[in-house]
Amino acid sequence: MFNTIGVIGLGVMGSNIALNMASKGEQVGVYNYTRDLTDNLVATTEGQLIHPYYKIQDFVHSLETPRKIFLMVTAGKPIDSVISALVPFLEAGDVIMDGGNSHYEDTERRYDELKSKGIGYLGIGISGGEVGALKGPSIMPGGDKAVYEKVAPILTKIAAQVDDDPCCVYIGPKGSGHFVKMVHNGIEYADMQLIAEAYTFLRKRLGLSVNEIADIFETWNQGELNSYLIQITAEILRKKDEITGLPLIDVILDKTGQKGTGKWTSIQAIDTGIPSSIITESLFARYISSLKEERVYADIILSGPEMDQRSLDKDLWIEYVRQALYMGKICAYAQGFTQYKMTSELYGWDLPLKDIALIFRGGCIIRAEFLNVISETYQAQPNLANLLIAPYFAEKVKEYQIGLRKVACEGINSGISFPCLSASLTYYDSYRTGISNANLLQAQRDYFGAHTYERSDLTGFFHTNW
Amino acid sequence: MFNTIGVIGLGVMGSNIALNMASKGEQVGVYNYTRDLTDNLVATTEGQLIHPYYKIQDFVHSLETPRKIFLMVTAGKPIDSVISALVPFLEAGDVIMDGGNSHYEDTERRYDELKSKGIGYLGIGISGGEVGALKGPSIMPGGDKAVYEKVAPILTKIAAQVDDDPCCVYIGPKGSGHFVKMVHNGIEYADMQLIAEAYTFLRKRLGLSVNEIADIFETWNQGELNSYLIQITAEILRKKDEITGLPLIDVILDKTGQKGTGKWTSIQAIDTGIPSSIITESLFARYISSLKEERVYADIILSGPEMDQRSLDKDLWIEYVRQALYMGKICAYAQGFTQYKMTSELYGWDLPLKDIALIFRGGCIIRAEFLNVISETYQAQPNLANLLIAPYFAEKVKEYQIGLRKVACEGINSGISFPCLSASLTYYDSYRTGISNANLLQAQRDYFGAHTYERSDLTGFFHTNW
Repeated sequence: MFNTIGVIGLGVMGSNIALNMASKGEQVGVYNYTRDLTDNLVATTEGQLIHPYYKIQDFVHSLETPRKIFLMVTAGKPIDSVISALVPFLEAGDVIMDGGNSHYEDTERRYDELKSKGIGYLGIGISGGEVGALKGPSIMPGGDKAVYEKVAPILTKIAAQVDDDPCCVYIGPKGSGHFVKMVHNGIEYADMQLIAEAYTFLRKRLGLSVNEIADIFETWNQGELNSYLIQITAEILRKKDEITGLPLIDVILDKTGQKGTGKWTSIQAIDTGIPSSIITESLFARYISSLKEERVYADIILSGPEMDQRSLDKDLWIEYVRQALYMGKICAYAQGFTQYKMTSELYGWDLPLKDIALIFRGGCIIRAEFLNVISETYQAQPNLANLLIAPYFAEKVKEYQIGLRKVACEGINSGISFPCLSASLTYYDSYRTGISNANLLQAQRDYFGAHTYERSDLTGFFHTNW
Repeated sequence: MFNTIGVIGLGVMGSNIALNMASKGEQVGVYNYTRDLTDNLVATTEGQLIHPYYKIQDFVHSLETPRKIFLMVTAGKPIDSVISALVPFLEAGDVIMDGGNSHYEDTERRYDELKSKGIGYLGIGISGGEVGALKGPSIMPGGDKAVYEKVAPILTKIAAQVDDDPCCVYIGPKGSGHFVKMVHNGIEYADMQLIAEAYTFLRKRLGLSVNEIADIFETWNQGELNSYLIQITAEILRKKDEITGLPLIDVILDKTGQKGTGKWTSIQAIDTGIPSSIITESLFARYISSLKEERVYADIILSGPEMDQRSLDKDLWIEYVRQALYMGKICAYAQGFTQYKMTSELYGWDLPLKDIALIFRGGCIIRAEFLNVISETYQAQPNLANLLIAPYFAEKVKEYQIGLRKVACEGINSGISFPCLSASLTYYDSYRTGISNANLLQAQRDYFGAHTYERSDLTGFFHTNW
């Protein structure tokens, strides 16, 4: 009997994907470049539909045709190496899927190379971390639709299910699946930073305890902020350190890293003229966090305002913070979905925005109630220019901007930095500025560089001899 | 008699550089790919030391050896084409200089290619626009020091002179000259946007007339804000439209463009982990400006706060705005110079920060009094981590942050967007936060992705089973 699918790359993510497939009744051939990971996996999977191979040709020959091979290999050169090793044993019609965090431009290059050989190639965004991979991730497949159809029965089975819908839909051509995953991660960075800023306000300005803040996040998780990230934040804040007995959060060092996808999101936005200030500020916040020693020194040298001693009405300000967080989130998702829309137009991808919001509802890190509303919004207005101007969101920000403005100002007056909340507000106010100060920039550019300008009353380009 | 230098590319910038060289006594051979620009130039330069050639080999053979050839050609492929056309006629020891806005990575590639042929290659940042090219630009040469020495006598002569010092110093190896110019342009974007935001506050919130604001900029230009950009802003605001009689600024359309270097600055910062929020926000401000039709629509749909009707004390608030602008500028330059420092360390360039500040004092678009202080600061502390912590700037921002905080808050409460002023403040407050909320991000990352974290009390990496 042949295996119905093969998985290459048996780190935690790859092993969990294989186990997920096997649990859904697939016969899964597995292979890893080094023998040890394969042995680790099969040592724990006796009786399951997992079948190890130690030579790549044996692995390939174990698969029913057309072969379906799922790669969970480190992004970059390792993917190219595996593909090179596979290709001699494949036939036209076979399908390779890359489930890692590959840059979408690399995916497009590989897609083109394999297409010329008749081999189907899908770049598949997977979100959900280790648990998601095992129990059902959010899956974003990009490539040829006909190729996707060959693997759709398996992918939809292993995906997270929400309201009986699989969190897996065909995204679009070539690298679009990996692109959607990339921006998903950028949105995730922004979402995390916004939550961290809300936490900071509650902790530093309202002076609440870690436990009180955990309560607040639990409460928020019952309402419109309901989401995986809010839920785990509450759980994190509950956790005690086993060594010191302190809240664990208080012994964790405030230096954070990043693994590339958030950075790529900002770079792609900047490179193609898309405003993406909130995601980008979340990235810069991480960069500044890594300058720990400089920050500690600057904290001594650089002064802030006198800390405002006025005590604030707690309930009122907790609500302001909730509003600020929700509006920040709306602005961040508005930017992320604008990046989908503008890039989709740029490349002619025809990205299904309503479906993208739907598959984010389960499995992935940014899963949230909120995504239902986004999906419904795009269902009603597929060509919407920006989420902010949709009736639901326009109404919501009309109401909630008071919270965001209060929190942002209070941060400024207290010397507490809220880069993503502030960027959300300046984005909102910039976006709704019908007549802006860009006329002065144009005048300056024409003055020193003869770049010319347009007029608001006449068509054409003008130059002034200043 | 041989020509002492050659110029290829006779657009406005190239022609002006040639005229500048000729006016300093150089015999200048000139060549352009199409004949018309050459004819245009020589039609107006009878009696000057400008000598046209219409074949590239005639041009090359007219030059004394080692040949010194200055390219003022559109960045990108045209540079490669010109180099390919030149190389067959050159000898080891000759020098090609690229004075355009090439990406520094392209410059490094060309440097390597030509070095293998024994031909010297310098990537030369030039700032000053058309007038600067003619009368004395700021010049940032990068490449081999020994190669630079061959052309230094000419470059220092044609550069702007400040206090008898030429605004031209050797920057460092390979692409570093173009890199310094690239970030210069990023700083310029931020500086322009900060000025536009100060203008907006005076106009929209204080309700001053264009003429009153021109007076204010003129006054500011007499003080520590003294700079080319402040000066031309005053002149721009004085200018009347010949068609309508209105202030010209009021008929210029508020859509602005960009030509790549500012964008490259942000991308390089993001790609290498350098916080560059102010330059990046200035770029996003331009991107949002280009969404004019969306903005006009959003202005109708999206509500702001009630416009505050309190009249503000004009003199006090004009001073607040001045402080805000100066502190914003300090933060923007702190980020730009941090980008120099961190990149210099990354590539081992050993960039001379004090000299870079010095050559920016004349010729270039961001020339300003302020650069003297920056230069003195780096002279005193060559390894300074960040301008903000130098005594002069730490003192200045201690005093001026009240203005920046007042203006930023008043913007928030009035619904007026100040992306770069806000980003300056969040950068300042983030940078001086010794203990930040990045611990929460690390906890989240460890929760959903097992990314591990460090502790503040123990060394090593830890993972919690949340």
